[in-house]
Amino acid sequence: MTIAGFKTSAVAAGIKSGGVLDLALIYSDRPATAAAVFTKNTFIAAPLVVSKKHLEENGHRVRAILVNSGNANAATGEAGIRAACVCVEALAAQIGYGANEILVSSTGVIGRPLPVDAIKASIPRLVSALSPGNLEMLARGIMTTDTVPKIATAEIGSARIAGVAKGAGMIHPDMATMLSFIITDAEIPHRELQESLEYAVEQSFNSISVDGDTSTNDMVVVLANGASGIRLPADEFRAKLTDLCIELATAIVRDGEGASKFVELIIEGAPSEKAARTIGRGIARSPLVKTAIYGADPNWGRIVGAIGNSGIPLKSDHVDIYIGGVPISDTTREKARQKLSQKEVQIRVVLDSGSASARVWTCDFTEGYIRINADYTT
Amino acid sequence: MTIAGFKTSAVAAGIKSGGVLDLALIYSDRPATAAAVFTKNTFIAAPLVVSKKHLEENGHRVRAILVNSGNANAATGEAGIRAACVCVEALAAQIGYGANEILVSSTGVIGRPLPVDAIKASIPRLVSALSPGNLEMLARGIMTTDTVPKIATAEIGSARIAGVAKGAGMIHPDMATMLSFIITDAEIPHRELQESLEYAVEQSFNSISVDGDTSTNDMVVVLANGASGIRLPADEFRAKLTDLCIELATAIVRDGEGASKFVELIIEGAPSEKAARTIGRGIARSPLVKTAIYGADPNWGRIVGAIGNSGIPLKSDHVDIYIGGVPISDTTREKARQKLSQKEVQIRVVLDSGSASARVWTCDFTEGYIRINADYTT
Repeated sequence: MTIAGFKTSAVAAGIKSGGVLDLALIYSDRPATAAAVFTKNTFIAAPLVVSKKHLEENGHRVRAILVNSGNANAATGEAGIRAACVCVEALAAQIGYGANEILVSSTGVIGRPLPVDAIKASIPRLVSALSPGNLEMLARGIMTTDTVPKIATAEIGSARIAGVAKGAGMIHPDMATMLSFIITDAEIPHRELQESLEYAVEQSFNSISVDGDTSTNDMVVVLANGASGIRLPADEFRAKLTDLCIELATAIVRDGEGASKFVELIIEGAPSEKAARTIGRGIARSPLVKTAIYGADPNWGRIVGAIGNSGIPLKSDHVDIYIGGVPISDTTREKARQKLSQKEVQIRVVLDSGSASARVWTCDFTEGYIRINADYTT
Repeated sequence: MTIAGFKTSAVAAGIKSGGVLDLALIYSDRPATAAAVFTKNTFIAAPLVVSKKHLEENGHRVRAILVNSGNANAATGEAGIRAACVCVEALAAQIGYGANEILVSSTGVIGRPLPVDAIKASIPRLVSALSPGNLEMLARGIMTTDTVPKIATAEIGSARIAGVAKGAGMIHPDMATMLSFIITDAEIPHRELQESLEYAVEQSFNSISVDGDTSTNDMVVVLANGASGIRLPADEFRAKLTDLCIELATAIVRDGEGASKFVELIIEGAPSEKAARTIGRGIARSPLVKTAIYGADPNWGRIVGAIGNSGIPLKSDHVDIYIGGVPISDTTREKARQKLSQKEVQIRVVLDSGSASARVWTCDFTEGYIRINADYTT
């Protein structure tokens, strides 16, 4: 799919070994309105510092996003910030825009100096490779430990939206990070775009868990350049953006390293949506629940323990739990076990403390996860 | 060691299979001052509800604690509360004290009815088995998945203190729970005892992590019966109690199922002791850090990520990390790896945001943990 006014590209700049794509570019032929959410981790990597500054300086108008994989430019101090700026300035000179019209993002090993010379040397090639509809190269250029590129596209009336993501940085946060970039040719004012993005991220990227870790480089950006000339109703755009983000976020969970099962948790009967999500995230990050799912054990005691551990006060301690639609009880244990043996598992938790609900996605916890993360050496 | 005025016992009541000890009793020949801390889990098991009520009704004066293993009496509703009361009343009738002079505690499988008849039938045997200095039987009587009994004793001047613990319930919260019972013949007023216990628990049981889960039955109780006639200075008692609790808490971590390494985390240079402990607990529960320790990988990026993930604001992002005394840097990687290959690992994190510190203990995360928790079936 092509998104009017946008081009993308990726090249092998030698940041990663093996000649794989590791430098990517998103380019808009006109200023695009930008909205962004950044990691909540206390330690914020250099590219996020620079991108936040540029967004503020330039009133959330963005022309391009430069992304590298293979090096996170995190825990690199002032030198890291200068390195990010040097790369952005080289790109600005090449495309003839101001440096503060460009965002920058990095993902890869923490604590190593960014290979600035390699990046600068590759920028002319990167710019000349720009073309419309090049989403797969973009998605590949930002991959680290991902095994598949993650792309989602949709039409919103006559406008279009597309996004790429990489992750999960939670699995290898020294191979930081969870990144996602979304572009649309719809016309969206900044405040509306930012509100829609925050809503969508809460429902998607903030509703997944592989192992509960955040990273220094997490970043989601949406650019709306209005090239389609279409001004969408706010709620219609928000709904499409949310669906797109959920598609990308669940693709990250499905690619969770060591994972053998994809798990959808539905929490109902909660006092608020936020409470439902907090409870869901608590279940999603419980190693005991995740190992039970791996072992196909309908262990509701662990789920109840995780609900109680989430810190959300509940009016009633009544809980009904359904696995693949089967209500858990002593007599349904075998049926529930069969449902848990499938590759896709749905667990529904029905509380008796309100009418709010939320969905959260996670994967199981396997020996594979331990092996990958124990054997991996810095 | 004997603690003046206290007797203990344990018998096999048939709650667990295999004729192992599963019903235990702590008895004081005079009213003892009691202090207690209970689980923060939203779902509180029946014995905790009953014990809290008795503590309030009887002004924190306690004569006995009845503990069973093999059944948590959790998620059992009103029937569970009645079951706990019936057992306590049977014991009260046998020893001639009031029911509200007795505390009750359970650990084991969640969601099964407490076998009240088996417990009632065993109470005469349990009472006649009471003897001083019987700590090992008590410690064995409260075990579930523990592989060794956990006992600690100390002298405080001419007074004495002893404690037993079981855990970690975090590993098998359906085999709930972390329990600890401590007895002393020193004379301590209730407020001082409660304050000392809360301080000690924060430094010990709340400073360990096996997998980050709490349970419905967690409970620590200290009884001070004053039988030695010795009134101790508050700070001296608090210090001894803290040491004793740390000894018991670290014994739980050392017995963590699947664990191959015992890890002490020392966090220094934090804005407050609470912040230091929160950061330490964040590192201690990070699956990525725990798998790196298992793989003997000096992966400081993961430690930095976990610090940032703890939500504590820091004045400076400067962090020095030492593994077994070796400062981590590119040149010391091999030395740090050797230190991480040992059975006991110390990781020191020195922040630049204050002068407070805390210690936290954890274990590594192994395939053994996954196997035990995946293969275990309800």
